[in-house]
Amino acid sequence: MESIKALIFDVFGTLVDWRSSLIADLGAFGDARGVSADWAALVDGWRAAYQPSMQRVRDGALPWTKLDDLHRATLDTLIERFAIAGLDEADRAHINLLWHRLRPWPDTVEGLTRLKSRFIIAPLSNGNVSLLVDLARAAHLPWDMVFGADVFRHYKPDPETYLGACALLDLPPARVMLVAAHNSDLAAARRCGLRTGFIPRPTEYGPEQARDITAEGEWDIVAADLPALAAMLGA
Amino acid sequence: MESIKALIFDVFGTLVDWRSSLIADLGAFGDARGVSADWAALVDGWRAAYQPSMQRVRDGALPWTKLDDLHRATLDTLIERFAIAGLDEADRAHINLLWHRLRPWPDTVEGLTRLKSRFIIAPLSNGNVSLLVDLARAAHLPWDMVFGADVFRHYKPDPETYLGACALLDLPPARVMLVAAHNSDLAAARRCGLRTGFIPRPTEYGPEQARDITAEGEWDIVAADLPALAAMLGA
Repeated sequence: MESIKALIFDVFGTLVDWRSSLIADLGAFGDARGVSADWAALVDGWRAAYQPSMQRVRDGALPWTKLDDLHRATLDTLIERFAIAGLDEADRAHINLLWHRLRPWPDTVEGLTRLKSRFIIAPLSNGNVSLLVDLARAAHLPWDMVFGADVFRHYKPDPETYLGACALLDLPPARVMLVAAHNSDLAAARRCGLRTGFIPRPTEYGPEQARDITAEGEWDIVAADLPALAAMLGA
Repeated sequence: MESIKALIFDVFGTLVDWRSSLIADLGAFGDARGVSADWAALVDGWRAAYQPSMQRVRDGALPWTKLDDLHRATLDTLIERFAIAGLDEADRAHINLLWHRLRPWPDTVEGLTRLKSRFIIAPLSNGNVSLLVDLARAAHLPWDMVFGADVFRHYKPDPETYLGACALLDLPPARVMLVAAHNSDLAAARRCGLRTGFIPRPTEYGPEQARDITAEGEWDIVAADLPALAAMLGA
């Protein structure tokens, strides 16, 4: 562990509570605009399309397309499927940008600030750079660098993302730890030679979450939250 | 000017005083190791090789090579030319990394901090990401994002750098301003459609500097230093 120099972080779910943020913001938007819908169902549908939409890029069925644009295509489909009336182009653009304003979990900013005192810290997210920069400015995430998927034109778990971040940091993978709430992300990072840190976020997907409740691999560190991770890493 | 959303900054010379920093650090290193040399001449020779070494990459004579590696090749040549004895591999690696620890000009941190309150701020430098991250951590430069040349695998003034930064920020070039102490950098940015801000750094190259003393183009803003630029931009 002593040789670790940089920590890179999954963002959606690991650092920010996308589901509660989007449901709250869509509810407020709907109230203000007089549009009603089952916003929780829309948010769950939006996220359900996340991996399949990126898979089309990973497989080459779609050319490189950043997450903002995948989100927008999914949103248009869902608005039609849920028969939500009265949302014009400006409304849809506004709703799509709610992903740029997701709120951090209560321990995120304290944890990152502590970890930054000892390690280089950066997100490694399937979000695009502009989304991650907006998110960091709004939520005060004190990044040293921002690795969006559009830097690499690949989505996790493609190895180009993990290894690309290590290359830009000029560090061998063994000196970089991925911190994530998702076992599959950590498994892919480990296959690339990175160190791994698991933080459970058992309500990321809502009250009935059935996945990623516990560590499912022999990760280098398992911590209850980011301050606990910082303590274990001496930060 | 009201439409500007992001400011991107040249780094060497514009934000950090590379010449004084390197001369001071090499002098201290030489004293500690009992190695004497004309360090100012070595630093000036190092910088004189900067553009020619990048030009070989721009022309395709060299494949993509990051600045740390160009710096190291130049350093080895200069150590031989100046007949400096007693510098082993660890010494040379240490000296090369002095570029990661350059000191900011006295107004840099205050200026960037003010500008960050209103604009997205990021370096756009021919330095590599790891150099820029180390520099920012040591000098407390509060970046939102870090655009090193290795993100684009192109050196300024190749348009891929200016336009690549705008694309990752998801902004049209007219909403992005390059801030630099070098007229040629600003001219290249303007050709790509970016806004331009000139800050003179009349001692960057030492007491007899003869270039970039004043604005040589109709730049959108000319300011005495970064706080003055911030004031002119309402930050």
